[in-house]
Amino acid sequence: MCDYYSIRWVDGVVRMLDQRLLPDKVIYRDFIKCSEIIFSIREMIIRGAPAIGAAAVFGMALVAYHSKASQTNELIKELNSAAGELKKSRPTAVNLFGAIQRIQNVVDRADEMNLDQLRQMVVSEAMKFAEEDIQMNLRIAQNGQQFIPERANLITHCNTGALATVGIGTALGVIRVAHESGKKIHVYVDETRPRLQGARLTSWELKQLGIPHTVIVDGASGYFMKKTKIDACLVGCDRIASNGDVANKIGTYNLALAASAHGVPFYSVGPSTTIDLSTGCGEDIPIEERTGEEITHVGDTQMTPEGVQVANPAFDVTPAKYITAIITDRGVAYPPYEMSLGKLMNG
Amino acid sequence: MCDYYSIRWVDGVVRMLDQRLLPDKVIYRDFIKCSEIIFSIREMIIRGAPAIGAAAVFGMALVAYHSKASQTNELIKELNSAAGELKKSRPTAVNLFGAIQRIQNVVDRADEMNLDQLRQMVVSEAMKFAEEDIQMNLRIAQNGQQFIPERANLITHCNTGALATVGIGTALGVIRVAHESGKKIHVYVDETRPRLQGARLTSWELKQLGIPHTVIVDGASGYFMKKTKIDACLVGCDRIASNGDVANKIGTYNLALAASAHGVPFYSVGPSTTIDLSTGCGEDIPIEERTGEEITHVGDTQMTPEGVQVANPAFDVTPAKYITAIITDRGVAYPPYEMSLGKLMNG
Repeated sequence: MCDYYSIRWVDGVVRMLDQRLLPDKVIYRDFIKCSEIIFSIREMIIRGAPAIGAAAVFGMALVAYHSKASQTNELIKELNSAAGELKKSRPTAVNLFGAIQRIQNVVDRADEMNLDQLRQMVVSEAMKFAEEDIQMNLRIAQNGQQFIPERANLITHCNTGALATVGIGTALGVIRVAHESGKKIHVYVDETRPRLQGARLTSWELKQLGIPHTVIVDGASGYFMKKTKIDACLVGCDRIASNGDVANKIGTYNLALAASAHGVPFYSVGPSTTIDLSTGCGEDIPIEERTGEEITHVGDTQMTPEGVQVANPAFDVTPAKYITAIITDRGVAYPPYEMSLGKLMNG
Repeated sequence: MCDYYSIRWVDGVVRMLDQRLLPDKVIYRDFIKCSEIIFSIREMIIRGAPAIGAAAVFGMALVAYHSKASQTNELIKELNSAAGELKKSRPTAVNLFGAIQRIQNVVDRADEMNLDQLRQMVVSEAMKFAEEDIQMNLRIAQNGQQFIPERANLITHCNTGALATVGIGTALGVIRVAHESGKKIHVYVDETRPRLQGARLTSWELKQLGIPHTVIVDGASGYFMKKTKIDACLVGCDRIASNGDVANKIGTYNLALAASAHGVPFYSVGPSTTIDLSTGCGEDIPIEERTGEEITHVGDTQMTPEGVQVANPAFDVTPAKYITAIITDRGVAYPPYEMSLGKLMNG
């Protein structure tokens, strides 16, 4: 595996790599309170839909582990309150809500348990959830291999590697396994403004893994598709609607439009937990608006004039028609997605 | 006019606003050597195709003005040498070469002149060149008004205002005159990585002019086209090939693809001096590759891992088929551009 990870549970402590400091500093932080987990999700100490899901279950596990409750009912209340707060941390990635629901399903069966059993069940469910993410990552990577030629020039956006998940990643996991199986891979990495997850995180991961790559500005993807043969774009996803529209990091849609204009296959890659059949189409997905400072400032340096108006949607929606296939742990979905996604989830 | 300007000739001194420091500091620098002008073009103290052209003629005017030559032939040599050095400063914008040619045309007639006449003719031609840019800007702005509705939501990329020209600008000049004539304008400003000319310069100019605007990351243009009615994209140009392919700041092509997908009119705006009928198509336009540090560093802060590979083309080419019209001082060209551009230039 890696010698770095986004998040781990270590005996009642949640240890997280502080991704705000990468690639400059590799610093792990230990948390024992759910409120710290919520802060870390909001401030993007941890980010990436699957990693956020894991952070949420571990946040609830911290509540269960450290609770001073003397009765099951008391702990149930604390867990429900934590769930409510966690749900407010970030709105777009559906994994967060699915993860919390997993723990709430345990809580719903709490009547049958004494206090210690509930504690143990919550912690155990959280660890199972994280372990499942590792397994899903591996299956995603296997399911994606068919789309990566022996020599491949790829483009990716944002970060979808080990830093975005508990395991080897989603889109970047596909790329990693392709490289490790001997394919000759080169990756163009969109720097991914405003938070520069591509320049800071993906580039750092690819360096650790020894995968050749070139960082470019987001606006240059069309230029490179025209100049060079690009074999595929692989990106992650934060929520997939039942019609196949995919919410992902801002800039993904522009990349998909460039891919479409150049006939470059465009793959959305993620765990099946990202598929939200209860959301009909992209317009129903809530898009998080983040602080304008992410655009106006880089570190302490202000780039824009004082008082400038900024709009900073953290995600966009790529319509299903621009997506060649959706690669998941349960298999690959092709258009029409109304059919294939339902089959994948219920089949 | 404005109470700021990109470049002026003041009695044997070239005064330039140091655009690297905007919007934080408004500092004008005085130059008396052509080598300083070349440095200022390379380092982007001044940028924007028309402003670069003006810098080049003023660079040659500095040579003529300050030369210690005692014979016409000696000054001719100095001017030719300066022309050669200036031509190497930046390769993509054709205005630079056209500007230098203007002065060389004067030098070609130097046999008829004594030393002082040549000095004066070069300085006078440079000032005339700059004055023509101001006039062209005004005609461009007039020719562009027909494309701006009474209430308009626009997107622009990079900086095409007074800072990019000697006068009121090209694409931003159109927007400015629309605003000043009472139209209700709002501008989405692409921040324009890597040098952030949108976030730093266009936003600063629009603030001085009181034009409502919102800064967005380059990857968000498609998102806003889907979310909001965008009436037009207006961008500048660094070189227009005879088939209508347009080289402009990196990221322009991706914006054009998004505009095309959304049926948003896409206008290339520039002086007719940007049209290069001797260049057949976009693939014949040399694209400047700039230092990777523009991407890896913001100020003194390094964003990427040490030693990362970066590709930093400063321009891209938007194929003619994505351009609704080309707005110039000589009139508006429509597809097929092979016909209309020739007519504009020769008619």
